[in-house]
Amino acid sequence: MEMQVVNSMNYEQFVDVFGNVIEKCPLIAAAVWTKRPFSSVSALEKSFGDFIDSLPRSGKEGILRCHPDLAGRDLLRGTLSAESQAEQNRAGLTTLTAGQRSQLSELNAAYKNTFHFPFVICARMNDRESIMNQLSSRIHNSLEQELQTSIKEVLKICHLRLLDITGPAAHTTKL
Amino acid sequence: MEMQVVNSMNYEQFVDVFGNVIEKCPLIAAAVWTKRPFSSVSALEKSFGDFIDSLPRSGKEGILRCHPDLAGRDLLRGTLSAESQAEQNRAGLTTLTAGQRSQLSELNAAYKNTFHFPFVICARMNDRESIMNQLSSRIHNSLEQELQTSIKEVLKICHLRLLDITGPAAHTTKL
Repeated sequence: MEMQVVNSMNYEQFVDVFGNVIEKCPLIAAAVWTKRPFSSVSALEKSFGDFIDSLPRSGKEGILRCHPDLAGRDLLRGTLSAESQAEQNRAGLTTLTAGQRSQLSELNAAYKNTFHFPFVICARMNDRESIMNQLSSRIHNSLEQELQTSIKEVLKICHLRLLDITGPAAHTTKL
Repeated sequence: MEMQVVNSMNYEQFVDVFGNVIEKCPLIAAAVWTKRPFSSVSALEKSFGDFIDSLPRSGKEGILRCHPDLAGRDLLRGTLSAESQAEQNRAGLTTLTAGQRSQLSELNAAYKNTFHFPFVICARMNDRESIMNQLSSRIHNSLEQELQTSIKEVLKICHLRLLDITGPAAHTTKL
């Protein structure tokens, strides 16, 4: 997708296309549209990051709370977003044994009890084992550390979802 | 619904229940949950307003862009949120004549072309005629005026949706 195409979108088209690069937060894409035109996908990605930076702490927590649990109720109910479904699938989270699912579920519950948001990780940059390891490790972080780490993971997910939509070509296209 | 019930909700329950009091912005409910406990529905409502106030201008525009057009494509496609469907129905927007629909559609297009967000009005506090009159009139506002007016309408919609969920009793219940 060429950047001219992105920049010519009205806000409805833009939200239709980019509305879920931050999971279940079309508000953010709708806000980022204000910053058009974008000179590159990197500039577009930076606008998403800048908007998230501008939010009060509760807003950053809110973004995390819009993310599904890994191998959680949305996966079981079939109510994951298409993007999350593909990501959890690729990380091997849709084919856990009963024992693995139960272990992940317990760790998730402990994590949420500690931080009041779900464990967020860029599943496509990890596999089942590293996800379990990081969940077991990150649960010992301070709330402040964990909020920062989690938002960085949100931005990695955003990066990959933007690439999926635009393809590599747009990264080198300038206006 | 008693405030104790609201205050005892985990974030998932809270977003399930209050996630659409700001249309298609579950992020906002998820952020507002941070501010619990709430002493009353008015306090809960104020937390929604405070969060919206805290957003940069692009974020306020983003909220407006998450709203559907009145009698627009979502209504025609049957993809309105349940809340919007009921509100547009009550205001008589689901039974427009072809002529009325075409007039509204033209005014909507002109409005969006001017302000880059859709015309937002608390449909339940208006009828078809007053909605048409206000759309015809507000299109002459400055962008600044119209952004402020529209966010006030978002807060009216939020107020009524909160009342629908909690019922009148919670308004007088203190912790």
